[in-house]
Amino acid sequence: MHHHHLHELPSEQVILELISYNREKHDRNPFSNVDELLRNLHPERVNWINLDGLNVSPIIEKLQAHFCFHSLVVDDILNDQRPKVEEFDDYLFVTLKMLYRIEGSSIDYEQISFVLGKNYLLSFQEKEGDWFDGFRERIKLDQGRVRKKGADYLLYRLIDIIVENYYSVLENIGEQIEITESEIQQDATEENFQKVQQLKKELIYLHKALYPLRDAIGKLVKDESSFIEEENVKYFSDVYDHVIHLIDSLDTYRDLTSSLVDIYINTQNTKLNQVIRLLTIISTIFIPLTFIVGVYGMNFDYMPELRWQYGYHTIWIVMIVIAGSMIGFFKYKKWF
Amino acid sequence: MHHHHLHELPSEQVILELISYNREKHDRNPFSNVDELLRNLHPERVNWINLDGLNVSPIIEKLQAHFCFHSLVVDDILNDQRPKVEEFDDYLFVTLKMLYRIEGSSIDYEQISFVLGKNYLLSFQEKEGDWFDGFRERIKLDQGRVRKKGADYLLYRLIDIIVENYYSVLENIGEQIEITESEIQQDATEENFQKVQQLKKELIYLHKALYPLRDAIGKLVKDESSFIEEENVKYFSDVYDHVIHLIDSLDTYRDLTSSLVDIYINTQNTKLNQVIRLLTIISTIFIPLTFIVGVYGMNFDYMPELRWQYGYHTIWIVMIVIAGSMIGFFKYKKWF
Amino acid sequence: MHHHHLHELPSEQVILELISYNREKHDRNPFSNVDELLRNLHPERVNWINLDGLNVSPIIEKLQAHFCFHSLVVDDILNDQRPKVEEFDDYLFVTLKMLYRIEGSSIDYEQISFVLGKNYLLSFQEKEGDWFDGFRERIKLDQGRVRKKGADYLLYRLIDIIVENYYSVLENIGEQIEITESEIQQDATEENFQKVQQLKKELIYLHKALYPLRDAIGKLVKDESSFIEEENVKYFSDVYDHVIHLIDSLDTYRDLTSSLVDIYINTQNTKLNQVIRLLTIISTIFIPLTFIVGVYGMNFDYMPELRWQYGYHTIWIVMIVIAGSMIGFFKYKKWF
Amino acid sequence: MHHHHLHELPSEQVILELISYNREKHDRNPFSNVDELLRNLHPERVNWINLDGLNVSPIIEKLQAHFCFHSLVVDDILNDQRPKVEEFDDYLFVTLKMLYRIEGSSIDYEQISFVLGKNYLLSFQEKEGDWFDGFRERIKLDQGRVRKKGADYLLYRLIDIIVENYYSVLENIGEQIEITESEIQQDATEENFQKVQQLKKELIYLHKALYPLRDAIGKLVKDESSFIEEENVKYFSDVYDHVIHLIDSLDTYRDLTSSLVDIYINTQNTKLNQVIRLLTIISTIFIPLTFIVGVYGMNFDYMPELRWQYGYHTIWIVMIVIAGSMIGFFKYKKWF
Amino acid sequence: MHHHHLHELPSEQVILELISYNREKHDRNPFSNVDELLRNLHPERVNWINLDGLNVSPIIEKLQAHFCFHSLVVDDILNDQRPKVEEFDDYLFVTLKMLYRIEGSSIDYEQISFVLGKNYLLSFQEKEGDWFDGFRERIKLDQGRVRKKGADYLLYRLIDIIVENYYSVLENIGEQIEITESEIQQDATEENFQKVQQLKKELIYLHKALYPLRDAIGKLVKDESSFIEEENVKYFSDVYDHVIHLIDSLDTYRDLTSSLVDIYINTQNTKLNQVIRLLTIISTIFIPLTFIVGVYGMNFDYMPELRWQYGYHTIWIVMIVIAGSMIGFFKYKKWF
Repeated sequence: MHHHHLHELPSEQVILELISYNREKHDRNPFSNVDELLRNLHPERVNWINLDGLNVSPIIEKLQAHFCFHSLVVDDILNDQRPKVEEFDDYLFVTLKMLYRIEGSSIDYEQISFVLGKNYLLSFQEKEGDWFDGFRERIKLDQGRVRKKGADYLLYRLIDIIVENYYSVLENIGEQIEITESEIQQDATEENFQKVQQLKKELIYLHKALYPLRDAIGKLVKDESSFIEEENVKYFSDVYDHVIHLIDSLDTYRDLTSSLVDIYINTQNTKLNQVIRLLTIISTIFIPLTFIVGVYGMNFDYMPELRWQYGYHTIWIVMIVIAGSMIGFFKYKKWF
Repeated sequence: MHHHHLHELPSEQVILELISYNREKHDRNPFSNVDELLRNLHPERVNWINLDGLNVSPIIEKLQAHFCFHSLVVDDILNDQRPKVEEFDDYLFVTLKMLYRIEGSSIDYEQISFVLGKNYLLSFQEKEGDWFDGFRERIKLDQGRVRKKGADYLLYRLIDIIVENYYSVLENIGEQIEITESEIQQDATEENFQKVQQLKKELIYLHKALYPLRDAIGKLVKDESSFIEEENVKYFSDVYDHVIHLIDSLDTYRDLTSSLVDIYINTQNTKLNQVIRLLTIISTIFIPLTFIVGVYGMNFDYMPELRWQYGYHTIWIVMIVIAGSMIGFFKYKKWF
Repeated sequence: MHHHHLHELPSEQVILELISYNREKHDRNPFSNVDELLRNLHPERVNWINLDGLNVSPIIEKLQAHFCFHSLVVDDILNDQRPKVEEFDDYLFVTLKMLYRIEGSSIDYEQISFVLGKNYLLSFQEKEGDWFDGFRERIKLDQGRVRKKGADYLLYRLIDIIVENYYSVLENIGEQIEITESEIQQDATEENFQKVQQLKKELIYLHKALYPLRDAIGKLVKDESSFIEEENVKYFSDVYDHVIHLIDSLDTYRDLTSSLVDIYINTQNTKLNQVIRLLTIISTIFIPLTFIVGVYGMNFDYMPELRWQYGYHTIWIVMIVIAGSMIGFFKYKKWF
Repeated sequence: MHHHHLHELPSEQVILELISYNREKHDRNPFSNVDELLRNLHPERVNWINLDGLNVSPIIEKLQAHFCFHSLVVDDILNDQRPKVEEFDDYLFVTLKMLYRIEGSSIDYEQISFVLGKNYLLSFQEKEGDWFDGFRERIKLDQGRVRKKGADYLLYRLIDIIVENYYSVLENIGEQIEITESEIQQDATEENFQKVQQLKKELIYLHKALYPLRDAIGKLVKDESSFIEEENVKYFSDVYDHVIHLIDSLDTYRDLTSSLVDIYINTQNTKLNQVIRLLTIISTIFIPLTFIVGVYGMNFDYMPELRWQYGYHTIWIVMIVIAGSMIGFFKYKKWF
Repeated sequence: MHHHHLHELPSEQVILELISYNREKHDRNPFSNVDELLRNLHPERVNWINLDGLNVSPIIEKLQAHFCFHSLVVDDILNDQRPKVEEFDDYLFVTLKMLYRIEGSSIDYEQISFVLGKNYLLSFQEKEGDWFDGFRERIKLDQGRVRKKGADYLLYRLIDIIVENYYSVLENIGEQIEITESEIQQDATEENFQKVQQLKKELIYLHKALYPLRDAIGKLVKDESSFIEEENVKYFSDVYDHVIHLIDSLDTYRDLTSSLVDIYINTQNTKLNQVIRLLTIISTIFIPLTFIVGVYGMNFDYMPELRWQYGYHTIWIVMIVIAGSMIGFFKYKKWF
């Protein structure tokens, strides 16, 4: 229904993949046909179905029919959504954002949604490519705990990898802030100002992603969902702590960025003050002198000084004294 | 009682309409007379009574008498109200704002109030025209779920359509922010400043509309009203998530707009600095030179330089050297 | 005890009045003597005792003795207090502020306190004059519901009238903001700045009055006081909604006023920039020209240009070319 | 243990005093010896032991031994502490700050701690001198309720006197704000700026004292301590309302002070704008005129205007026309 | 797993130490081998195992195996973590930050983690060196209560010492703020501005450390962990009060620092205004005079004033009158 806030999807190929595993066995296969995939589900294993590309509704409809999703779940998968967790009778629905920081440019998002059932996990991604390849390899090679655990642990690991990625994005921003700070202290260029604005914007968008994520994972931890085994709640609680830690860092970076603006303005003002001070010094010294030489450029018939033998020398001495005391005054005022 | 904060109503015609439907049947009729409309209610169907124009109190009084509203409900329908939900013994009262964004100008509001009973829904609008026409058509053609559901689902759909409209208004503002940002980075004109102020104002008014809306719909979801069937609570909960999402976006846009002000000020300052720098450069170069030429415009009888053969040429060389070193100094300071 | 923060009271006459009514009967009488008034109470009617002027303690002491108030209640009536609601065993104590907006000047406050018992309501006002006269007439003429209801409904109506008055004060401020905004966009005069400061101050004081009012009435609604009949709680709940609505508007107006400051500063800056730009244009054009004419005002014996026949014309052409290219440069920079 | 944040104590004499009273009797005696004091306690009376000066630990240790304090309580008495209330099995511990506003300078604090037992109250003050002398007299003369009540009422009265004192400090600041505002509107001197900064600082420190005080007294009211009789809770609740009222005023004053900064900056800017405008007017009028007179100061052999009979008069007319139109332009721009 | 946000560890030697004590006995020994250390544990004593340096995983793995930690605990010990408290079945896990303020430079952090069991406490530090040496001595000499208490009291004492250290860091910052304020009021140098920025940054980082610390210790107090004896909860509650007090001070310092920025800007503006005023005074006095002398430098054949005997004297008088009235005007305007 809410097609208006649908992400623009590239016409990439839709990719369907099933990874099924238990302590003993492991299979990983791509499928071009949903029905075939559904026939290959192993009830005694954990089944992870991953779908890249959401623009082919028949696939999603068949999955919906097979796993009995509520129609609102399909809406939420297809549309830009606030990160959230919702428990239904037969499954748990989780949707959140994966982050991509494109070097030199802004942050990009991809929505990823999960449906967790008793022995299956469905993951829906907008585009091909994710941060899970290393982890898929670990499953295959039976590294870590994943093959000994259920689908809930699989969900935890995937969320954990996504949150890890937030850390690296945020650390990258932290480094950018430090670099920009030292640049700004040297010169307040337009370019630096735009860097600060860019950083501010990225932090605003991260804020928009992180606060709902905290709420969503917090709900997961507190609600004691029946789809998450009690011994695994500790893991989600650990992810929750990481998200809170991320938010602390985010707030710290926001404060630092607003300090950057202060530093920028100060550097700019200091520069302007220097300019105005130079103007004042030059004007204050030469305007009175110019007046004096103007006086003796007048053509009055009767101007006795003009006739004096040392008039010219006297006037020079007077002017040097005036200029000298001006300079002394400026030195006293520490203007240069 | 509270007639003082009553919206100014145009003297448009009052329009009464009844749509009644169930799985099998559907009727849609305008009525000029309330009593006739009330006689046409179908107890076994969902009855949606819509009233456009609130300045004819006899109609509302008759509806109040027939459906036994509390007098406070009538007050709330007639006066500008904070979006709210209130449950009474025989009905549920909901009031909220519909948004109209008039192109190039500000946002306009229209208050819409609903009274939801067991098999009826009354909607009260200030003016003719709403966003529901497409949906009325869907009811007629039996598209979607609406004909299979009760009056509570009808209420959900109407609120959902209103909230959808908030999305499009907010997205429109988001686009305006981006356009204005790129314009401001080029030139800090008065016109751009007024655009930013306009955007800020619109966001302030949206803030005033969205936060109470969140409270109202949140109450609807949490209070487990007896007028909303349990299986339909999920729908209202979905609308609630949308409103929270809208508020996230709103806060993001407010942050972005306040960045716009920073960018505007910076562009303006950069421009002013340029102007002052030019003034300083010109003054600093020419004021000393003017002093020098003034010196040799003096009319002292005894000024030996004036008698030198190459005095004039010497003075030009001196002046060129002074001007040259000034320019060198400015280049070194990167002032131009 | 807390006499230090007592309002300065004018030496106006103290006015005592009793209005007693039920469905059938109505009496309204002024009294100069408390004992006489207390003898005139009708146990079977609602008795509304109103006291204007709080500087005659014997009256209050007699009322205290008759209605058995706690001594803290008397303290609270006599001293400037935060709006609050407190329930005692035999009565409910309510204190709040009435608002007076003096045209062209600031907002003035008057504290009003109520003591609600089973069949009586006492109201204590600092000064003569209130917003209740129209309502007293309605009681007399038996309009509305008041004669059919108890003392709690009377209290609701009085609070409602006070809150209504907040609306009109706030709307007045809203209009002032709009007027001031359009004035400021035209010219940033000192007078406009003071208007903005005045509006800000009024909103600060309103904030101080409204937030505790919300807490007080909210407590009244939630605490289910035994002095308010259940069917009348809806009315107080309606007043509560109005106060929340007022606070929303207040926050909106605070945001708008802080925008006004931004607009003021921008208008002022734009004006200053214009001034500095003019200074720069004039200086940049004429300072080099003045130098040139200075050169040919020098008195060197040997200056060949001075002897040329078209020297004077040439120098004019040179100067016009320089001035022209300067103006061209400014036009290109869009400085005028 | 936490000796590092111990207040610097003057080497004043330590003063021990016992006031014991009931309905019938009253004794007030200074003691130089703790043991003697402890022998003079009257179990059937309220015993108020006051200690001025905390640098003689033996006294405190003996009191600790006699009344069985927890060692943390002694730590809290001796060190700078956040205002707090803590209930132990045998006594209630309360610590808060007394305020001293030194005229023309900043606010000073003194920590005062209370230990309330069933029939005794201990008060520990850092320095001699407090706000209680008038109240000690009232106890002696049996004014008010204090002789009819227990030690809890005594504690209430002492806290109430301390809070009263906050009121007078805050009102003093309020008056200062008003005076400073009218001064600033006339002239933005450095001195006024420092007054504003001083007020801001005092409000920051008051904020630091008042918010924890609210928490502490709020805890006292809500926790239904067994050391406070039920009928006396109303009194502490009244003090609580006063603290909330103080906080409201504090927030109002903070808003007003930040407005003062705005007004200061505006006055300063207005003054600067005036200065720059004058510079521009003078420069814009005289720089072109100086150019013109420079032209006719040139020494070209062939300058026809110089030979005209009315050349000089013409040039004056031209210059007056130019100056006049400049002034007209400035008048039109409302620059003076 | 989360190795990416691991602190960079110096290749210092890993140091293992066991302090075991009870009322009668005390042993303190360094160990180079974990197994040996584990053999030396005394079940009837409190065993405090301290590990400096976290880059030798075998040691931690053996401790994990012996004390049965959850793998997440090991992750949290090894990685930069938000201060937190987590209770497991067999132990309580606490992690927080120790602060080091490096003179003239920024604040440095070291993460310290504790695992508290029934009769043991493990502490994990990143680097050698801590604030506990004085306390280790007190244990040895049986000073204070520690030898009479269990491992929970030991944990309290260690946390207390860490929090004490926060006090001294914060007090140091407080002194810096006062020094910087008086420096800034005298001169707004770039160096002072950087000091303010440095203080702001340190407060931002302290904020990031203190708020989670409050949450962590607050959880410890409220959750009534089975690892903390009831009579010792008071001690942790005291630490909690200290952290709240620290946060109050931190907020106060943040407000003061932002005032510093205001003072800096004002000092800078006042200086700039002085400069511009001087420029204006000099220009306004001399530009008109220069024009006048220019007039009489013109070479018109017919200029009657030039021929007057007292022309020159008259012009001087005129100029002195003009200059005098300018100066009078400036004095009146209080510009100098």
